[in-house]
Amino acid sequence: MKALVYLGPYRKALEERAKPVMVAPTDAIVKITRTTICGTDLHILKGDVPTCAPGRILGHEGVGIVDAVGTGVTAFKVGDAVLISCISACGKCINCRRQMYSHCTTGGWILGNSIDGTQAEFVRIPHADLSLYAIPAGADEEALVMLSDILPTALECGVLNGKVQPGGTVAIVGSGPIGLAALLTAQFYSPAEVIMIDLDAGRLAVARRFGATATVDSSDGHAAETVLKLTGGLGVDTAIEAVGVPATFELCQQIVAVGGTIANIGVHGVKVDLHLESLWDRNVSITTRLVDTASTPMLLKTLCSHKLDPKPLITHRFKLDQILDAYETFAHAAETHALKVLIEA
Amino acid sequence: MKALVYLGPYRKALEERAKPVMVAPTDAIVKITRTTICGTDLHILKGDVPTCAPGRILGHEGVGIVDAVGTGVTAFKVGDAVLISCISACGKCINCRRQMYSHCTTGGWILGNSIDGTQAEFVRIPHADLSLYAIPAGADEEALVMLSDILPTALECGVLNGKVQPGGTVAIVGSGPIGLAALLTAQFYSPAEVIMIDLDAGRLAVARRFGATATVDSSDGHAAETVLKLTGGLGVDTAIEAVGVPATFELCQQIVAVGGTIANIGVHGVKVDLHLESLWDRNVSITTRLVDTASTPMLLKTLCSHKLDPKPLITHRFKLDQILDAYETFAHAAETHALKVLIEA
Amino acid sequence: MKALVYLGPYRKALEERAKPVMVAPTDAIVKITRTTICGTDLHILKGDVPTCAPGRILGHEGVGIVDAVGTGVTAFKVGDAVLISCISACGKCINCRRQMYSHCTTGGWILGNSIDGTQAEFVRIPHADLSLYAIPAGADEEALVMLSDILPTALECGVLNGKVQPGGTVAIVGSGPIGLAALLTAQFYSPAEVIMIDLDAGRLAVARRFGATATVDSSDGHAAETVLKLTGGLGVDTAIEAVGVPATFELCQQIVAVGGTIANIGVHGVKVDLHLESLWDRNVSITTRLVDTASTPMLLKTLCSHKLDPKPLITHRFKLDQILDAYETFAHAAETHALKVLIEA
Amino acid sequence: MKALVYLGPYRKALEERAKPVMVAPTDAIVKITRTTICGTDLHILKGDVPTCAPGRILGHEGVGIVDAVGTGVTAFKVGDAVLISCISACGKCINCRRQMYSHCTTGGWILGNSIDGTQAEFVRIPHADLSLYAIPAGADEEALVMLSDILPTALECGVLNGKVQPGGTVAIVGSGPIGLAALLTAQFYSPAEVIMIDLDAGRLAVARRFGATATVDSSDGHAAETVLKLTGGLGVDTAIEAVGVPATFELCQQIVAVGGTIANIGVHGVKVDLHLESLWDRNVSITTRLVDTASTPMLLKTLCSHKLDPKPLITHRFKLDQILDAYETFAHAAETHALKVLIEA
Repeated sequence: MKALVYLGPYRKALEERAKPVMVAPTDAIVKITRTTICGTDLHILKGDVPTCAPGRILGHEGVGIVDAVGTGVTAFKVGDAVLISCISACGKCINCRRQMYSHCTTGGWILGNSIDGTQAEFVRIPHADLSLYAIPAGADEEALVMLSDILPTALECGVLNGKVQPGGTVAIVGSGPIGLAALLTAQFYSPAEVIMIDLDAGRLAVARRFGATATVDSSDGHAAETVLKLTGGLGVDTAIEAVGVPATFELCQQIVAVGGTIANIGVHGVKVDLHLESLWDRNVSITTRLVDTASTPMLLKTLCSHKLDPKPLITHRFKLDQILDAYETFAHAAETHALKVLIEA
Repeated sequence: MKALVYLGPYRKALEERAKPVMVAPTDAIVKITRTTICGTDLHILKGDVPTCAPGRILGHEGVGIVDAVGTGVTAFKVGDAVLISCISACGKCINCRRQMYSHCTTGGWILGNSIDGTQAEFVRIPHADLSLYAIPAGADEEALVMLSDILPTALECGVLNGKVQPGGTVAIVGSGPIGLAALLTAQFYSPAEVIMIDLDAGRLAVARRFGATATVDSSDGHAAETVLKLTGGLGVDTAIEAVGVPATFELCQQIVAVGGTIANIGVHGVKVDLHLESLWDRNVSITTRLVDTASTPMLLKTLCSHKLDPKPLITHRFKLDQILDAYETFAHAAETHALKVLIEA
Repeated sequence: MKALVYLGPYRKALEERAKPVMVAPTDAIVKITRTTICGTDLHILKGDVPTCAPGRILGHEGVGIVDAVGTGVTAFKVGDAVLISCISACGKCINCRRQMYSHCTTGGWILGNSIDGTQAEFVRIPHADLSLYAIPAGADEEALVMLSDILPTALECGVLNGKVQPGGTVAIVGSGPIGLAALLTAQFYSPAEVIMIDLDAGRLAVARRFGATATVDSSDGHAAETVLKLTGGLGVDTAIEAVGVPATFELCQQIVAVGGTIANIGVHGVKVDLHLESLWDRNVSITTRLVDTASTPMLLKTLCSHKLDPKPLITHRFKLDQILDAYETFAHAAETHALKVLIEA
Repeated sequence: MKALVYLGPYRKALEERAKPVMVAPTDAIVKITRTTICGTDLHILKGDVPTCAPGRILGHEGVGIVDAVGTGVTAFKVGDAVLISCISACGKCINCRRQMYSHCTTGGWILGNSIDGTQAEFVRIPHADLSLYAIPAGADEEALVMLSDILPTALECGVLNGKVQPGGTVAIVGSGPIGLAALLTAQFYSPAEVIMIDLDAGRLAVARRFGATATVDSSDGHAAETVLKLTGGLGVDTAIEAVGVPATFELCQQIVAVGGTIANIGVHGVKVDLHLESLWDRNVSITTRLVDTASTPMLLKTLCSHKLDPKPLITHRFKLDQILDAYETFAHAAETHALKVLIEA
């Protein structure tokens, strides 16, 4: 089968690989019909993810058709249309029992990382019963690909951890795909204001179409003052960090209100300054999280009931044959205006 | 001044009364610009509320202008435009300290009940600092009257107690004003389904305009079966009782899902059957509440940010001179299709 | 093997039965070393549990040694010492995913009910990975038998649902084994007062030894007045119903404070009166629950760290050969003063 | 009257000052019977608290007798025995309404900071109704002094923010008075382990007497490894920072478990490193808080019901005349082994 293979820092290729086979009775093999590329895949290609060795098939998102199931799989059968979660969960370990599937002791984020992933014709899914979701009849399969990772990540790490509430004020620092996904899911809770902050005016224009009530161009270095002005000097109840660099985390500390929350989504490569000398008495919370995809059943319900429309996140479509082009398009989003690129079998 | 006075069961009159005077330094006198009539006022007129003695000026909702303040009032001054809460709260007692203002030991629901109320040209507001809210610049004053009682009641007793969640299923039994207000505020949380249930097809048509995803006419006696069918046999996560009679509470017990909540809003005059023989192992919660109006600041923010539009609740408008007509219109809602009737000074 | 078999209403026998065999790859066979008798077993023997057919081996509590495991069992191996949960949980279904294991779509309370149970030399445990718990080294196996059902039931249905808090006031209606287990686990949260209420002075004396701060003999019909007097007229923050008849649920309604919770543990056979005419505005919650045993890991930790001592619940010990005597002793607790009777292999 | 006055960095004196007079109708004047010294007073004396100007009477803790009340005070009268909260709260502002009294817009921590404090014969208490608490009959007044600041701070900032739970594991970094107060109040929730960490073996010996299940001497630089070993490699569910320097906050990051919480109590003077490069995917929360004293009513109940015994925190007693000696004793705790020093009128 064809598969996109990581060959070491800055090297990848579309190769011919053997179709995966089952390893454990709880495995399923899924024929991929649609997948996509995540910002994390670009991190891997920079050599930033040591758990991902050269030779690995990338990808941890997608939908497909069950091609084979082990004897221990009870929830799915061959031919079922399924959504693949980016997180594999045994459902049994101490962390799965508290729905912290991200830290499943035999799972977590392993797809396209420590085991082969979804940017291929077929993928092996461990712990299939808890790591796949039946696709509801009539659901839009393109939209569903957004439920593998980006929407639960934005919702869980940003919106739920950030305690977004009706009438509350939210700032999202970073108007890329994950920031926009946070913007979409924040609206589940009817906040009064969602302020999007980015260096790129084009991305902010997109944010306004996605429902931002205000946008702040941070390229002038005065984003914090602007946000404070927009919030009557109070700052925001929820500051969502959706970039992953020290400067954006710093900004979150400057704009969070007394009693507020900084919810980190960004993947950070270096330490940041935490200004406890000014925050120690501000009654704030700071949260981190690897997505658990515990919210996937809820997201499926909001999708099917049309409370959520993730389709506008998809800006480009490619065939698997063209996946190298898809990577180019996605990696140069500033020029291509790509958000999520869909790859069809 | 003119005032609508309760004269005993089934008797009321628009009378000339002395303008109220301050009793405590924490009082304010408010000149009423708009008020309305509540279903509870009709209960009083049937003689069902023993705390309300003949001679009482009715009414616990309204907006107005501060006419005088005591020396202990710090948050308001003469001339301020204010929203009146139906609940008076000292902010100091054991119950106020946990935001259960409804059971303030020197307040609670006293307006138009144990002290004179708002259906008059002026009203005395005890504990003014915590019982009045500044009207934000540019806010629609008609809409604001809906924040005195009906919206916080629907939100707190129905939606918050009922734990309405994104993707959840909700049934609201009773599509009168309070049920519709629950429907409006339930949408803050993006439930997948909100099923409205009523005996009156006209009211159900209104519910569809207010955002119901399904309506069930219960006049055929098969509402429970219909709701179970609509929810794949599971029942609803949240059943909101918005009528106040045994039959509707019984229906809630029949349609609540395993793990779900019955949130009671209705004012009940008699005991009901609780079927613990079938519910003891169903992991359900049943909640009751007198509105605390602790959510008023949040409602003001949702109103000002246009996440909430209560104006469609207002179906009729009258002058204070015509308040007896307003009562007639409101009391005969089946014919007049009245929801809330607005009374202007 | 020997097994205690239900033969129809009021009939049981210690019979010779075939050793159980595995049915599904996720099953385990456990050799029982200790089991006990539950009040629910007495209900079955009265014919009150229609899901339990004649011919059924009773019992849903116990500890033992793993005798065999299916190919799908990954957490246990032959020879492991295990605690058996009264609830079988697949870990995959919609209810297990929210830790509502009691309503697992292929499990729940099935042991000694719809499948053969633990009052035997061996038992088949479905969904073994989530329905067994490894026994920590050095743990007291007798004490552990109390973690199969009675302690998680008391904790989850009574203490957690009842929101027991430091400084709070608690009343537990019924000082039998389950009420005493609620008393033990309520003390995890340092309430100021735990008032035990019962008709039997002997049971109340036991309650005082278990940590009750006050006891109320309800045989004089004035229990409600006494509790109100003990709480300064306010009533209790948490009223735990641990009997299961209308009179005790009625008492809970009379003694619950404004803003309080009635947490039902009792198994009810008939409906009860719910006095919404007086409770509708009292801001109370009423909860029901079949134990989920989601708290078993926490209980194991409190047991191993000596924050919990359930041994005093065990009043009598028998061999499996003597299980008919054990039933007699347990069924006549008023005379024998039995709380829990332990049955050893 | 006599009063301990801050005269600028490193300078203080016991001076004769005029008795305070009422400024607002909501004020009370309290005759101090007992007060104490807080670590924050030492911070002020180093010149670290810019809001505290030379000439200020220090102190924000104490009990006393009401000497005078303004016309706006309704909860207290002359002669009442009262506990003074370190936080003054109006009960009306946006922050008081959500029980975040620490950020009361006209109060907060002002006593002995921006207005004169309690280390004097009399003190003026603004917003008396919400800033004083009636002393229950029979309560130990010495113990009560610990409820002004240290116990609510430890409970709210450490234990409640840290989500201490039955069966959980807790580490408290810093075994000084505030760390020991956290240890005392953590036990409200029956954690399995409370590990105290300090550089001083003497303080750790005290911690064992206060209920620590393990102690770690961090002077060897291997505290993190030791804590991980004590917790089976998992780290602790709750890490409480009770010192306020970068090294101790760093340690908390090293020992917090996946899914755990770092609850900061320490007053920090400089920024710290936050290792988001390793914590971003660890599902942790970090909290800060200035004490709200919202838990004071609960603490009073636990004190009166003997669930809490703060008396062992008091190691030394002085008369107000000897307050300079008291400061010496408190400031040299390493030699004097002082925890809290009580100062009597």
